[in-house]
Amino acid sequence: MQTRQIVLASRPDGWVVPENFAVREADMPLLDPGDVLVRHLYMSVDPYMRGLMNDGGVAYAAGFQIGQPLFGRVIGVVESSRNKDFREGDCVFGMLDWAERSVARGGESLRVVDPAKAPLSHYLGTLGFPGLTAYVGMTLIGQPKEGETVYVSAASGAVGQVAGQLARIAGARVIGSAGTDEKVRFVVGECGFHDGFNYRTVPSIPEALRLYCADGIDVNFENVGGANLDAVLVQANPFARFAMCGMISQYNEHEPYHLKNLNEIVSKRLNVQGFVVRDHSHLIEQFIEETADHIAAGRMTVAEDITNGLENAPAAFIGMLKGENFGKQVVKVGEL
Amino acid sequence: MQTRQIVLASRPDGWVVPENFAVREADMPLLDPGDVLVRHLYMSVDPYMRGLMNDGGVAYAAGFQIGQPLFGRVIGVVESSRNKDFREGDCVFGMLDWAERSVARGGESLRVVDPAKAPLSHYLGTLGFPGLTAYVGMTLIGQPKEGETVYVSAASGAVGQVAGQLARIAGARVIGSAGTDEKVRFVVGECGFHDGFNYRTVPSIPEALRLYCADGIDVNFENVGGANLDAVLVQANPFARFAMCGMISQYNEHEPYHLKNLNEIVSKRLNVQGFVVRDHSHLIEQFIEETADHIAAGRMTVAEDITNGLENAPAAFIGMLKGENFGKQVVKVGEL
Repeated sequence: MQTRQIVLASRPDGWVVPENFAVREADMPLLDPGDVLVRHLYMSVDPYMRGLMNDGGVAYAAGFQIGQPLFGRVIGVVESSRNKDFREGDCVFGMLDWAERSVARGGESLRVVDPAKAPLSHYLGTLGFPGLTAYVGMTLIGQPKEGETVYVSAASGAVGQVAGQLARIAGARVIGSAGTDEKVRFVVGECGFHDGFNYRTVPSIPEALRLYCADGIDVNFENVGGANLDAVLVQANPFARFAMCGMISQYNEHEPYHLKNLNEIVSKRLNVQGFVVRDHSHLIEQFIEETADHIAAGRMTVAEDITNGLENAPAAFIGMLKGENFGKQVVKVGEL
Repeated sequence: MQTRQIVLASRPDGWVVPENFAVREADMPLLDPGDVLVRHLYMSVDPYMRGLMNDGGVAYAAGFQIGQPLFGRVIGVVESSRNKDFREGDCVFGMLDWAERSVARGGESLRVVDPAKAPLSHYLGTLGFPGLTAYVGMTLIGQPKEGETVYVSAASGAVGQVAGQLARIAGARVIGSAGTDEKVRFVVGECGFHDGFNYRTVPSIPEALRLYCADGIDVNFENVGGANLDAVLVQANPFARFAMCGMISQYNEHEPYHLKNLNEIVSKRLNVQGFVVRDHSHLIEQFIEETADHIAAGRMTVAEDITNGLENAPAAFIGMLKGENFGKQVVKVGEL
């Protein structure tokens, strides 16, 4: 049996380009005892993958290898199993290749998911690690209290939309920023953020934050970095918490943004806490239960952006890095 | 009765210059009930005062006013008192003017100190707020464990020398950096740091940290900011704690240093915590007891740099901002 795969052809120098990827056909290996063959349905493309394209990867994970398939979070269906925990026809989540099929050696990273509880693609977004990322950053680090002001950048993205809704559920006043008017309308109109702005069209981010977060910012959920972070440092209230989830504005830049207001960390006694969701993956089942409840009760809205076809995964990934997606970016690779 | 005072003549634009200060004679006011007249013995000049020279002060304190005396921590002796808590001849600590005498209205900020327990100048350094600053940053935020590596910049300064010694007492491996070979010899030879380097003469700070902190940095006590902070971000271990005490390298710069490695906060899950000692002033008496014990038992060394004469306070302050002092910079204003 064969499968199409997407491999890393070259490492990006600055912005990711289509030439960094190549499609190839590969033979599927035979299954050893414990192995599971998965046919892929949905693949996740996420900002953190940009770091894995660099030589050496990142502090918390080895990177992609030239000539080898990229890998990420996948929802698929078990096609064949030599593992007692997984049966043919099971829907599963796993860290698998960018491919139409892959083998999970010893069933590693696989987890059965329930197609009756939610659309399967949700397990890559609001009910998956992006949702858990929002939960960790907002609930464990940000800890918004009733009446506090919470600011979420990249607010309509996979993580941002959940982060803002969790803060709203906690009773905070939530302000979001995003890169199109449509995204702002979504987070305010459908996700229940109190207000929001388009960072591309406001006169400046500092001015927008003075206007939209007039009482200051108590919790900053940082997805963007750069000029966004610099402006938040100024508008932050003393003792504000910064959940440092990512800095997507900086991943493709040769010259990082020149931050000017870092000294506010000292004088305002800010708590700036970086985090990586994989340290908290033991919370996923509990998180899915709670969050499926929120969705079922109408307290939480989900936006997904689904691109069709494995061969379009590189374009979907590049578009997501540029903010062209609307909601969680997923690639559909097959039908159940 | 009259007193000499040092007033703010103008606000600095970049580096502080002698012309920002003026000496004047002022009449001492009469004492109202509750007031205490203090004759000054020692005055403290500290990095945080640079922020108070800017228009608007800093987030945690109002700034100095043009034409008004600067103020800071002072050790003096009560010359006259209309307050039952203070008697003529008491040695006191207080937030008082840069002057030879001042009146503490209602006795505000005054605290009696014991001249038998330690040289009086120590109450402005190791046994005062710089020492407490080190204690808060190292003990409450940094929390070094036995065998961890702790890095302290401005290591021979008022705060750094105490911070490093507290980490050494906690069983950590302590590396310091300072701006002269003599300062490095002091922190290694007399303060018991495990090693140290002169940041002005090493090929580069990143290279020095790779060499001196080969196992990475678990606790960073940040006094300097800029290039120092950027290098520590690279050498930090996952889950390192950054006690953000100050960024003296940046206070006089028009263009802040261009930080390149901020993304390490996310990928290494760093905890970057700003703090200001005044939030913790209730700990001072307990701190003095513990620390006086450390000194008496020979576990802690004290270095002070004493400049004579009120009129030399501006030069002592400017020299301290440039790193010309050796140990805690104090200005001696009078004899007991």
